[in-house]
Amino acid sequence: MNEEILIGLMSGTSVDSIDAAAVKISSNGNTAPEFQMIGGLNWPIPEDLREIIFRLFEDGPGSLRLLCLANIRIGQLFAEAVNELLNKLSLKKEDVSLIGSHGQTIYHVASKEIFCGENLRGTLQIGEASVISQKTGIPVVSDFRVADIAAGGSGAPLVPYLDRFLLDIHGEGTAFQNIGGISNLSYFEKGARASAFDTGPGNMIVDRLVSEFTGGKLSYDDGGRIGKKGQIIEELLERWLSHPYLSADVPKTTGREEFGTDFYDNWISGYENGPDLIRTAEEYTALTIADAYGRYFAKAPDKLIVCGGGAFNPVIMDGLKLYMPETKVMTGDEAGISSDYKEAVAFALLAWSFSRNRANNVTEATGADYPVVMGKLSRP
Amino acid sequence: MNEEILIGLMSGTSVDSIDAAAVKISSNGNTAPEFQMIGGLNWPIPEDLREIIFRLFEDGPGSLRLLCLANIRIGQLFAEAVNELLNKLSLKKEDVSLIGSHGQTIYHVASKEIFCGENLRGTLQIGEASVISQKTGIPVVSDFRVADIAAGGSGAPLVPYLDRFLLDIHGEGTAFQNIGGISNLSYFEKGARASAFDTGPGNMIVDRLVSEFTGGKLSYDDGGRIGKKGQIIEELLERWLSHPYLSADVPKTTGREEFGTDFYDNWISGYENGPDLIRTAEEYTALTIADAYGRYFAKAPDKLIVCGGGAFNPVIMDGLKLYMPETKVMTGDEAGISSDYKEAVAFALLAWSFSRNRANNVTEATGADYPVVMGKLSRP
Repeated sequence: MNEEILIGLMSGTSVDSIDAAAVKISSNGNTAPEFQMIGGLNWPIPEDLREIIFRLFEDGPGSLRLLCLANIRIGQLFAEAVNELLNKLSLKKEDVSLIGSHGQTIYHVASKEIFCGENLRGTLQIGEASVISQKTGIPVVSDFRVADIAAGGSGAPLVPYLDRFLLDIHGEGTAFQNIGGISNLSYFEKGARASAFDTGPGNMIVDRLVSEFTGGKLSYDDGGRIGKKGQIIEELLERWLSHPYLSADVPKTTGREEFGTDFYDNWISGYENGPDLIRTAEEYTALTIADAYGRYFAKAPDKLIVCGGGAFNPVIMDGLKLYMPETKVMTGDEAGISSDYKEAVAFALLAWSFSRNRANNVTEATGADYPVVMGKLSRP
Repeated sequence: MNEEILIGLMSGTSVDSIDAAAVKISSNGNTAPEFQMIGGLNWPIPEDLREIIFRLFEDGPGSLRLLCLANIRIGQLFAEAVNELLNKLSLKKEDVSLIGSHGQTIYHVASKEIFCGENLRGTLQIGEASVISQKTGIPVVSDFRVADIAAGGSGAPLVPYLDRFLLDIHGEGTAFQNIGGISNLSYFEKGARASAFDTGPGNMIVDRLVSEFTGGKLSYDDGGRIGKKGQIIEELLERWLSHPYLSADVPKTTGREEFGTDFYDNWISGYENGPDLIRTAEEYTALTIADAYGRYFAKAPDKLIVCGGGAFNPVIMDGLKLYMPETKVMTGDEAGISSDYKEAVAFALLAWSFSRNRANNVTEATGADYPVVMGKLSRP
């Protein structure tokens, strides 16, 4: 049994903080690895950098210059998160064999398009791995998604690599739902058209509404407190349910391009009551998730394990229980999986896989033509 | 003696083609490696992609989307260049241990600037290594420059890593001059303020003038034919020699930001005779190179070995001989170094160094605070 510690790093679409998770991974080389999270840390992204990253999402003039500098700056923050986590867990850099860093997604071309005569996708994550490895003294594997795109996949989702191992523990009928800015599912049903894809919005619309209606004072609906006070605007919900993404063919992936500013500008106008809009957006998240299981699978899952920020929003969780009556809905923490750090844990495992030269894209999830070893190694 | 074949890939600031060089490298683990180029290939970049890359240089709106797609597309072309070179040399992919790819520079923040409270540089090269490794079946080391920037350096120049090995062959008093879009020198004089830096423009101004004055029919002054017909505009040359870059402190690095569109728009107005302007720009290239040896070193080099496209322009070469009377000026080919493929050869060596976990930035050249192993490894 070979036992080692890896650290996984993730920064999501809300760009408020970096998740760092230290994971002990044991394997004997042939069987599936056993793994256990031994600690996590949430490291804030300063407001000035966060604002620049949101400017980058708009893809306006001068973005490439900002991109070059933000890549280095956010790399420094990823490194700080690692060093702080080492400190917190009383680990030395020598105790950690490898870091797996997702980085911060800046742009994602989710659907193939004709470009210079070729039918291509593309993706861009920043958070410079050279900076992370030099400032921590630990080798780093980064830039995972683009390798799946090079193999004809959509570069997302990548967390199903972890979910497949979790199935061994939780049983075949288990589905995994992550509710971050965007929501995605992993559900390995035999004969299904896809086993993992983005179901649609997670907290992205809710967070934007909360920020707008509190003048930037709050950035998310903590405990569903605002949504609970609102009423569902049925007519608006109906309109939102006609969004073309929801009925698109699977596997499919989405992001800020569809449920960010464009959605806010074009799908919300005409309504002004903050709590009602927030409640409606929360219901929309729950409904679109439930809808995906009904639409693309033969049988509802026995168990639904929810991770990500949405797991802490009772309005969304109650919605899921209501719309998925045959399924036992629970949070990751209730199921023994860290709701907060699941994605960071996944990137520790993806890096471990790179170090073993094992393919780590789940082709049924990404639609890639073949399995590949995703990631690029930087040396300290 | 361990002998292996690596391939180096380079695409320069003129974005007209990719240089691929196969290099046989022998080493016994301790001494400097011996190396020999066994073949090279020049692979064209199609006009549609070239136009998009020039649009990226302008850093206008929508650049990030184009960047994501161009990264994949140019990666495909790098892979084609490798596969074509294997074919030409009757090599199989198994014969090549590693590819070192510089990529195509899109943006380079050469001087430190305050960004989110930190004093930072940044750089961006594209030509996706995951695509190259998957389409060739050979591991790829890429993204070198940013590791030097992470170490406090300017991320350029990197070719001095090769020049140091060449000194063993050509003697201590030898200087190496590359004249690509930008010109850079390597001259390891004891006690000098820097041993390698960009001297200023190479062919960038000349190429732009040729393209403008031939309505795009020609892209460079082949054999110096146009420049030979022109007269030096002394007054304009004088003005150009006041460009602040020329007297800036070393080590220093420059690019399209200073000698591209900005130079063309702001430093040329008032003159219309094509051949005179082209001749003046060629003289400017030669003079600024000669000036750098006089300004920053105690003693003129005994020998100056010129590589890059400028080595094939007799107006520039004659200028160098005129302005450096104590130095024997010769082309790389005259000295047994491929003038065309020197940079591609350098990236094969830089990748070799990564594979040996040896530092490969020349800190006297880049100004980095410490030596690092530059590059990131992608697996096929």
